[in-house]
Amino acid sequence: MLQRYFPILTWARSYDRGILTSDLMAAVIVTIMLIPQSLAYAMLAGLPPVVGLYASILPLFAYAVFGTSRTLAVGPVAVVSLMTASAVGAVAAPGTAEYWEAAVTLAALSGVMLAVLGLLRLGFLANLLSHPVISGFISASGILIATSQLKHILGVKAGGETWPEMLSGLAGALDGTNLATLAIGVPATLFLFWVRKGLKPALQRIGMPARVAEMTAKAGPVAAVAVTILAVIGFGLEEHGVSVVGAIPQGLPPFALPSTEYALIKALWVPALLISVIGFVESVSVAQTLAAKRRQRIAPDQELIGLGASNIASALSGGYPVTGGFARSVVNFDAGAQTPAAGAFTAVGIALASLFLTPLLFHLPNATLAATIIVAVLSLVDFKTPRLLWAYSKGDFAAHAATIAITLLAGVELGVIAGVAVGLLLYLWRASRPHAAIVGRVPGTEHFRNVERQKVLTLPHLLSIRIDESLTYLNARWLEEYVLEQVADRPPLRHVVLMCSAVNAIDASGLESLEAINHRLVDGGVKLHLSEVKGPVMDRLERAHFLDDLSGRVFLSQDSAFAELALDTGEAPGPADPFDARGMI
Amino acid sequence: MLQRYFPILTWARSYDRGILTSDLMAAVIVTIMLIPQSLAYAMLAGLPPVVGLYASILPLFAYAVFGTSRTLAVGPVAVVSLMTASAVGAVAAPGTAEYWEAAVTLAALSGVMLAVLGLLRLGFLANLLSHPVISGFISASGILIATSQLKHILGVKAGGETWPEMLSGLAGALDGTNLATLAIGVPATLFLFWVRKGLKPALQRIGMPARVAEMTAKAGPVAAVAVTILAVIGFGLEEHGVSVVGAIPQGLPPFALPSTEYALIKALWVPALLISVIGFVESVSVAQTLAAKRRQRIAPDQELIGLGASNIASALSGGYPVTGGFARSVVNFDAGAQTPAAGAFTAVGIALASLFLTPLLFHLPNATLAATIIVAVLSLVDFKTPRLLWAYSKGDFAAHAATIAITLLAGVELGVIAGVAVGLLLYLWRASRPHAAIVGRVPGTEHFRNVERQKVLTLPHLLSIRIDESLTYLNARWLEEYVLEQVADRPPLRHVVLMCSAVNAIDASGLESLEAINHRLVDGGVKLHLSEVKGPVMDRLERAHFLDDLSGRVFLSQDSAFAELALDTGEAPGPADPFDARGMI
Repeated sequence: MLQRYFPILTWARSYDRGILTSDLMAAVIVTIMLIPQSLAYAMLAGLPPVVGLYASILPLFAYAVFGTSRTLAVGPVAVVSLMTASAVGAVAAPGTAEYWEAAVTLAALSGVMLAVLGLLRLGFLANLLSHPVISGFISASGILIATSQLKHILGVKAGGETWPEMLSGLAGALDGTNLATLAIGVPATLFLFWVRKGLKPALQRIGMPARVAEMTAKAGPVAAVAVTILAVIGFGLEEHGVSVVGAIPQGLPPFALPSTEYALIKALWVPALLISVIGFVESVSVAQTLAAKRRQRIAPDQELIGLGASNIASALSGGYPVTGGFARSVVNFDAGAQTPAAGAFTAVGIALASLFLTPLLFHLPNATLAATIIVAVLSLVDFKTPRLLWAYSKGDFAAHAATIAITLLAGVELGVIAGVAVGLLLYLWRASRPHAAIVGRVPGTEHFRNVERQKVLTLPHLLSIRIDESLTYLNARWLEEYVLEQVADRPPLRHVVLMCSAVNAIDASGLESLEAINHRLVDGGVKLHLSEVKGPVMDRLERAHFLDDLSGRVFLSQDSAFAELALDTGEAPGPADPFDARGMI
Repeated sequence: MLQRYFPILTWARSYDRGILTSDLMAAVIVTIMLIPQSLAYAMLAGLPPVVGLYASILPLFAYAVFGTSRTLAVGPVAVVSLMTASAVGAVAAPGTAEYWEAAVTLAALSGVMLAVLGLLRLGFLANLLSHPVISGFISASGILIATSQLKHILGVKAGGETWPEMLSGLAGALDGTNLATLAIGVPATLFLFWVRKGLKPALQRIGMPARVAEMTAKAGPVAAVAVTILAVIGFGLEEHGVSVVGAIPQGLPPFALPSTEYALIKALWVPALLISVIGFVESVSVAQTLAAKRRQRIAPDQELIGLGASNIASALSGGYPVTGGFARSVVNFDAGAQTPAAGAFTAVGIALASLFLTPLLFHLPNATLAATIIVAVLSLVDFKTPRLLWAYSKGDFAAHAATIAITLLAGVELGVIAGVAVGLLLYLWRASRPHAAIVGRVPGTEHFRNVERQKVLTLPHLLSIRIDESLTYLNARWLEEYVLEQVADRPPLRHVVLMCSAVNAIDASGLESLEAINHRLVDGGVKLHLSEVKGPVMDRLERAHFLDDLSGRVFLSQDSAFAELALDTGEAPGPADPFDARGMI
C-alpha cells in the first residue's frame, strides 16, 4: 500500500554504487541539455528565463518520490509552455508580477487536479484524447510555437495568439528587422538544425563511438549558447539592438504561494485541466515507451499523483506547469539512468547552475533561445500522420484535421476541446448504429450467417437477428428502430429471435428497449425470443424479471431456436406444411 | 425524396371519407381535453393562459405536414413548460412583454435547432439521454411542477426555482392561505384524481361501454372547469380573494417574431438545446409506442424536422416551445385518429375556442388549472424505477439518482446536464476497460477458453489473449497497459497471440496501440501475432501496412497459431522438448 503511493520505496532499498554511477552520468548529460532548454521554454511561456530553472529543480525531487517511471525526466516542455502563455496571457500582461503569480497558480491548480484525478483513479479520462487528436494538437502547437519565435530571430516586436494573427503581426513588423539579431538568429538556427541531423554522423566519421557522438550532439545547444554569448560581448552587439536575457537573479528558487483569488481561479481552471490532461497523456506515453524497452511497468493512476506532486512542487518554488518531456527522457534513458535518483541529481545540477552560472548568461541573446525552441518544436510537426489517417479512417482524419485547424485558427484550448468533441461525436455516432445482421442457417450445418453474405435458409414467419454489440443506452434506441423496421417489412412474421452471442452486457436502457420491443411485438402479434445469451447477461435478465414478461423463450443455441420455431408457421397444418418446412431445414 | 421531407404526401392522396370521419371524431375529443390543459400549462410556464391556446393551433398544422407519426399530438406539455419557466424566468420577469417575447424566442431557437439536427441527421445525439436519466428527470420534474402549483391551491404568493426554495417559500406563506381558494382547489384536485382513477369504472358499472367511458372520463377536467367557474360566479368568490384567469384576448393567434437580440439568444441557447433534446426524446418514444401498435413506422430524423417546424410555427404565432405529448397522443390514438389530419382538425377546434370560448373562461379560478396540472404530473413520478435500477445496475442507478437529486436541488437544466455527464462518464469508464481473457486450449478440442473459467492447456513461452471488444481510442491505452502488464509478468515469454474474433473494428488509435505493442514487444524479444481477424478489419490493417511491420504472423485460427508457435520455445531442441510440448497439445 505504502509502496503504491510512494514508488521510491520500491527502488531505494536496493540502490547501490553501480546504479549511483549510472544515474550520476545520466544526470550530468541531462543537466547540460536542460539549462538552455529551461530558459528557452520559460521565455516561450512569457516568463523570466530563470523561472524555467526553478521549474526544473523541486519538481524533479517530487517525481523521484511519487513517480513510477524509472527514467522519465520532468520539467518545462514546449507544448505546455505554449498553453501556459495562452492561459496566463488571457488574465495578465507578460512581464508583470501578476503574470508570474498566475503561472504559479496555474501550476498549483494543475497539480491539485492531477493528484485528485490520480487518487480517484480517473486516469481513463485521458482516453478522451485519441491518438489523431493528440498528434494533430502537437503538430499545430509546433507550428504555432515556431511561428511565435520568429520575432526573436528577426529582432522585432509582434504578438498574436492564433496563427493568422502571428503571421500578420510578423508581416507588419518585417520592416523593423534588426540585422544584428538576424545575424545571430539565422546562423544559430541553421547550426542547431545541423547539430540535430548532421553532427552525430560527422563525429562518427572522425572515429567517435556512436553513443558518445549521440551524447555530444545533445550538448550542441550549449555550444550555440557559448558562441553567441561571446559574439555579443566581442562585437558589442547589444548596442546594435540585439536583445539579451539580461540579469538573472542568482540563487535557489524562492518559496511561492499560488493566488487564492476566486476570479483568477475561475479564469484558469479550464486551461489548468487541459494542461493537466495534455501533459499527462504526453508524459504517460513517453514513460510507457521507455518502460517497455526494459520490460518495466508504470502505473498510470500513480503517474497522475507523481505529476501532480511535481506541479505542486513547481508552484511552491515559483515555477510553472511541468510534465514528462520526450527529448529529455530519451536522453536520460540513453545516458543510462537506472532510477528516478538520476532526476534528483539533475535537479541538484540545475540548482548549482542557478546558484553560480546565471551571471554568465547575462549576454545570452534571446535569438539563440528562440533558435533552440524552433529547432526543438519543428521536429514535433508530423506531416505523415494526416496522409496515413486519410487512408485508414476518414473519421479519425476528420478529428485530426479539426484539431489542427482549430488550434491554428482559434488557439490551443479550443483546439483540444474541438478535437475531443469531434472524436467523441464520431464515436457516439458509430456506437449509436452498431453492426447487426439478419441471419439464416447455412444448409446442412448448425451455423447461422448473414443473409447478405452467404446463401442461407430463412423462413417467412421467422426472423433471426444477430446483434454484434453490447446493448447500451447509446444504441438502445437504434435497437428498437432496427428491430421494429425489420418487422414492419414482413407481414407474415410470427417469431423474432435475437441472437445474443456477441452481447457482452445489457445496461438498464438496453433492458428497457428489449422490454419495449417485446411489448410492441406482442401488440403486433409477434413473439420475441432470445438465443445464445451469455451467462452473466442471463443472470441479470433473470434478476430484472425480464424473462417473466418475455412473450417467447430463451434458447441455448440459435440452432435449437430455428428448429423449434420453424414448425410454428401459424397456418393450419396440411400435407405441404409444416413438414415441408422441417424438411427444408 | 419529396415524400421524405413532406410525409403529408404519403397519406394525403389516399385520404377518404372513412378516414375523415375517424379523424374528426378524434379531433373533437382531443380538443375538449386540450382546452383546460393548454391554459394550465401556459400558466405553469409563467405565461398568460391564452398563450397555451396559441401554441396548440399552428404547431399542429406544421406537424401534420412534416411529422411522420400518424397519431402524435403536439402542443404544450408539462415538463417543457417547466423548462420554459426556468429558462425564461432567468432573463425576464413573469407577466412582462419581455417574458413573453423571450418565450417566443425560445420556441424559435428550439425549432431551428431541431430542424438543423434533423437535416444533419444528428438525431443520435438524443441517445446521450439514457432511460435512467430521462426517467429520473421526468420524476423530479413532476415533483417540482406539483410543488410549484401548491401556491395556487393555497391562494398564496410564493416563488423558488429549486425544490428547497419552493418548500421554504410555501412554508413561509402558509399563514396567508386563502380559505376560499382552498375550498375550490382541494375539491377540484380530489375530483380530478377520482376522474382519473375512479370515473371510468363507475361509468362502466352504470352500463356505459368501456371505450365511451374512457373518453367521457378524459373530459372530466372540463366538468371541473365548468363547475368551479359557476361556483366563483354563484358565490362571488372573487371578492373573497379567489384569483381567476381574467380577461383572455379573443381572437386568432397574433403574428409574432422572435427577438434577434444577441444577449437574449446567448442566454437562451443552452436551455433551448436542452428543451429540444428532452422534447424530442419524449415525443419520439410516444410516437414509436403508438406506431408499433399499428405496425407503422416513424422516421426519427424527419421527426426532428416535424418538431422543429412545429416550434417555429409556435414562435411565429406567439406560442412557446411545444412537443409531442404522451396523454393527448394516447387519447388521439384511442379515439381512432388515422392521420395527422386529426391534429389539423384539433387545431381548428382550438382556434374556434380561442375565437368564441375565451370570454366564458374569465371567472375560471387559477386553482382549478393548478389542480389539473398537479393531477397530470403526479402520474409522471415513478417510484418503481429507482428500486429496479438498484437491483439491475448500480451504475445506471447512480445516473438516475444524480439526475433526480440535481434536478430537485439545482434546477432542470443542471439536472439534465448532470444526468448526461454521469451517464457518459460511467460509459467511458466501462468502455476504457473492456473484457479480455488469457485463453488456453480445451484439451482434445480446437476450442480456446478463459484460463480462469476452465481447465485448459497453456505454454510458458506462448501467451494467447482474447479481446472481447472493438479496439477504439477509448480502450487503446488500456490495451497497451493490459498486454504489456501480462508480458512483464512472464519472463520466459517469446510469443503473444491476440485472438481478434470479437474485434469488429479497429480505429486509428487502436491501430497505433497495436503498433506500439508490436514495437515494445520486439524491444523485449517477444513476437506479436494475431489470430481470427475478421475480413473487413484485415482489409484495413493491410491498407495501413501494419502487417509489414508486425513481428509475427496473422493466423486464420487460434488453433493453428497455438499448434505452430508451441514448437518455438527458443530452447535447443532436446528429447524432452519441443516434442513433449507438441504431444501435450
